[in-house]
Amino acid sequence: MGIEERTKGELRLIPARKGVTERVKAGQTVTVINTHGSQVVDSWAFNAEDPSEFMSMEHSRGAMLRVNPRVGDTLRSNRRRPMLTLTEDTSGGIHDTLIAACDRYRYEQLGHVGHHDSCTDNLAQALASLGVTGAETPSPLNLFMNIPVGADGSVSFQPPVSTPGSHVRLRAEMDLIVVFSACPQDLVPVNGADCIPQDAHYTIA
Amino acid sequence: MGIEERTKGELRLIPARKGVTERVKAGQTVTVINTHGSQVVDSWAFNAEDPSEFMSMEHSRGAMLRVNPRVGDTLRSNRRRPMLTLTEDTSGGIHDTLIAACDRYRYEQLGHVGHHDSCTDNLAQALASLGVTGAETPSPLNLFMNIPVGADGSVSFQPPVSTPGSHVRLRAEMDLIVVFSACPQDLVPVNGADCIPQDAHYTIA
Repeated sequence: MGIEERTKGELRLIPARKGVTERVKAGQTVTVINTHGSQVVDSWAFNAEDPSEFMSMEHSRGAMLRVNPRVGDTLRSNRRRPMLTLTEDTSGGIHDTLIAACDRYRYEQLGHVGHHDSCTDNLAQALASLGVTGAETPSPLNLFMNIPVGADGSVSFQPPVSTPGSHVRLRAEMDLIVVFSACPQDLVPVNGADCIPQDAHYTIA
Repeated sequence: MGIEERTKGELRLIPARKGVTERVKAGQTVTVINTHGSQVVDSWAFNAEDPSEFMSMEHSRGAMLRVNPRVGDTLRSNRRRPMLTLTEDTSGGIHDTLIAACDRYRYEQLGHVGHHDSCTDNLAQALASLGVTGAETPSPLNLFMNIPVGADGSVSFQPPVSTPGSHVRLRAEMDLIVVFSACPQDLVPVNGADCIPQDAHYTIA
């Protein structure tokens, strides 16, 4: 059974280094597929009627009582309302809520000169394509990103534990605009030890 | 030696349940004193010249490589620039970067009916008193707030470990607007097992 059949929807591309956006109705399920196995997908959700309400990691952690969503957990908005529920996860269950989206400042600090794609720019461009401007850059849900927290509160950047074709399923709890960015980070190994950003895919059903 | 003498500045009040704001110059040190020992102080910083740049927990964690600042750590802005450095801490070293400021939605969910002060409203009112409107509500640095992270990624809300009169010192790394809110949470024991919000104090030197 292929990924498309398993996920019950048209397979759509999140191109390596780029972002995509979709409008999703309450009750629909978005499946995000880690096609090559080691690609982090920065994820955001906004209330489709009012983008000043957005999925908030700092509000979600307090409600989930976890730093990392598990199946059954609901991500909440900055008004503490349910936005997305994690209903299935074949990726190993390691995602991140702690680390900001990459941005041009990050790449400058890492020594990159000139333009570099970033998840922050991908979010802004995706929203602009829907005519949404001026939205905040919320702290993202970093699907498949592996940022372990040590007993001493330390955090470290590690390669994903997900495998090729593994996926997460997220059910929309309100009408949403969702944005997914295949993280273009190629200077530290968050997208795998080879530091090569890859495509990912998704379906909406 | 009294608190005022020890902290080398005029002792100023953060009234229980309320917020205060100050303009602080680069190089100045703000000392926040947990006068009664168990009061959480939600803290924010904004670039004094451009409040769209603000102290960001999600950017700071990635730079500090910790979920919880220690002496010597620098909190960074959403443009990844240094804003505040923790230079001294007599409180036991337990602060929180994970949990959103309380807001009216939080108190509604906890069953409160009618008005309740909140750190989110305190921030907005403090900024408005300086003529700053429309700023984001960044995830705060919750001084003295005790949110342990378990080995399984769980978080829990615990009373502070700080003691009466203990303090933290924060050095401004750029010209800042800082806001401090003595958290009005009285329905869960984040401000001590007795759930009674208290005054705190601060100095600027």
